[in-house]
Amino acid sequence: MSGTDLAVQDLNGDLHSLVEGVLDGNQLSLSRLISRIENGAPGYQDAVKVLHEHATGTRTIGITGQPGSGKSTLVDKLVDKLREQGLTVGVIAVDPSSPYSGGSVLGDRVRQTSRNEDPNVFFRSMSARGHVGGLAAATFDVVHAMDAFGKDVILIETVGAGQNEVEIVRAADTVCVVAIPGAGDDVQANKAGILEIADVFAVNKADLDGATATAQELQQMIRIGQDLERSDAGDPADDPDTWVPRVELTVATKGEGVDDLVDAFDDHYAFLEESGELAETRARRFEQEVRTHLGNELDHLADDVVEARRDLLTEDSSVDPYTTSEELVVPFRRAVEEYLRDD
Amino acid sequence: MSGTDLAVQDLNGDLHSLVEGVLDGNQLSLSRLISRIENGAPGYQDAVKVLHEHATGTRTIGITGQPGSGKSTLVDKLVDKLREQGLTVGVIAVDPSSPYSGGSVLGDRVRQTSRNEDPNVFFRSMSARGHVGGLAAATFDVVHAMDAFGKDVILIETVGAGQNEVEIVRAADTVCVVAIPGAGDDVQANKAGILEIADVFAVNKADLDGATATAQELQQMIRIGQDLERSDAGDPADDPDTWVPRVELTVATKGEGVDDLVDAFDDHYAFLEESGELAETRARRFEQEVRTHLGNELDHLADDVVEARRDLLTEDSSVDPYTTSEELVVPFRRAVEEYLRDD
Repeated sequence: MSGTDLAVQDLNGDLHSLVEGVLDGNQLSLSRLISRIENGAPGYQDAVKVLHEHATGTRTIGITGQPGSGKSTLVDKLVDKLREQGLTVGVIAVDPSSPYSGGSVLGDRVRQTSRNEDPNVFFRSMSARGHVGGLAAATFDVVHAMDAFGKDVILIETVGAGQNEVEIVRAADTVCVVAIPGAGDDVQANKAGILEIADVFAVNKADLDGATATAQELQQMIRIGQDLERSDAGDPADDPDTWVPRVELTVATKGEGVDDLVDAFDDHYAFLEESGELAETRARRFEQEVRTHLGNELDHLADDVVEARRDLLTEDSSVDPYTTSEELVVPFRRAVEEYLRDD
Repeated sequence: MSGTDLAVQDLNGDLHSLVEGVLDGNQLSLSRLISRIENGAPGYQDAVKVLHEHATGTRTIGITGQPGSGKSTLVDKLVDKLREQGLTVGVIAVDPSSPYSGGSVLGDRVRQTSRNEDPNVFFRSMSARGHVGGLAAATFDVVHAMDAFGKDVILIETVGAGQNEVEIVRAADTVCVVAIPGAGDDVQANKAGILEIADVFAVNKADLDGATATAQELQQMIRIGQDLERSDAGDPADDPDTWVPRVELTVATKGEGVDDLVDAFDDHYAFLEESGELAETRARRFEQEVRTHLGNELDHLADDVVEARRDLLTEDSSVDPYTTSEELVVPFRRAVEEYLRDD
């Protein structure tokens, strides 16, 4: 199967010029194109397809932590450090609980403004509003857009609440979970499974009491997790093909520990490349994106079927919802059976 | 289309005896059957189909409120009041943030135990665990089970966080939102749209300062909402076909205001019956259930297709996820087109 047959000139006028602008490195075009993605503007998927052709597979780092963990400050300091290394940076701040998007929130505006002098940093916040294809799909579309724009590294910042956000952050190449002293409670409150997906832990606000204890708790949790995995897989101890999550102490407000944190990210990325796991990570993200888009397409088709068979949807006490849904799924089931037979 | 062709004797041995027990009014059978629903035991959908045949369309009341609103205490007092009226009651307490289900939580155990003497109250808590078809679908399955069991009223209690819970509670015949004094903040924090779905507001802890002010704020919000709706619809003022949400002051711990709250529920139910809106509410819930089940079926079919076409899912930088998902959706699209043409 070949890629998309679309080229920039096949896009409609508005998207055509925006995509051209993005590929030329125009920040305003990137900002506007992201708004088209968020609002589900007609043809936005075609624009993403074209951008994907120009994407190089930029490195992504997911950073997640509870409100109050100092995550945003830490991200700002990480951006500074990455800029010092000469890298261009994109930041996507995902906040499903915020009704605002596109930097309308005061805090975001402040954060964006402080960066205005540096054209090599692009900051974008995304809320739960809009996103016909869901927030996760929109986030990945924006990753492709920033990638095609030419960013060297993309940071994806989330609050880490809810399954949706876990999906978003776990698709990054490297996942950093920001904890704070007293994280024993967080460990217990690991409802969304966020701790299990960490490649690197940052114990932020490490100048507070209990930082060392929290780091030790995390180390212990990591050891137990590794032992379990190894005994499940029958692997020897200290298997070089296994990444052992790192724990770094940071004080984001003072910039302390940020160098070590970036080193840990770099070590993890090097591990991914050397072990071949980078390809696996990327394949997993690709599958996740395909599944999300496929799910949306199937939802639309289900809408069509439900509309056409509205006669089945008047409540009739002799019919139950399972029987009705089984009737409606018949054409879909038939399609899959034929498809699998032909294959 | 006729209903299910299944009867009790078609169910597998385990479910056969449990469904018989439920129809005979055996509480232990009901409890066990709900566990089968929660765990997605083989054939549980058939059991729900059979139960649906025996259901009468019991009245449901959804009660939602933030943690700390005294919602659980209020529900307990409502149960007492409904029992005084000679009604049998089922309670489903939905807590997606809890990893426990089936009354394993200490608080739930206390609540259940205190009811143990009264066989006419059945209490069940449901967490986010399990539920192959999703928490909303499982909750409705349990409603059908309690209905077939013979309960006169079913209370569905949720924390009201997140879209999933809003869906669950809005499907009830009557929706009660529990606020507390100082709810101005809650009004602002109406992220999930929970306020818009209220048929009745209970301002609980009404012995605290500011209860009257909160009730007035809610009344004002209701008036504004009604004015907007009427001007949109071109309806005259005081249209008797419109339900104006009621605001009741309660002190659940002392049982104060609970009589008035039950009266408000009764008035709303009478309104639903007289205006014909009950049929609409039920049809909406039926459609929601069908859509949920259909969505689950489509997910399974998508799994099959993705498995069969895993060759398309190895990341290849020349292919983008939208193009791949469009390729995978082709057979579905063709089948739906045929189905709609034949229709």
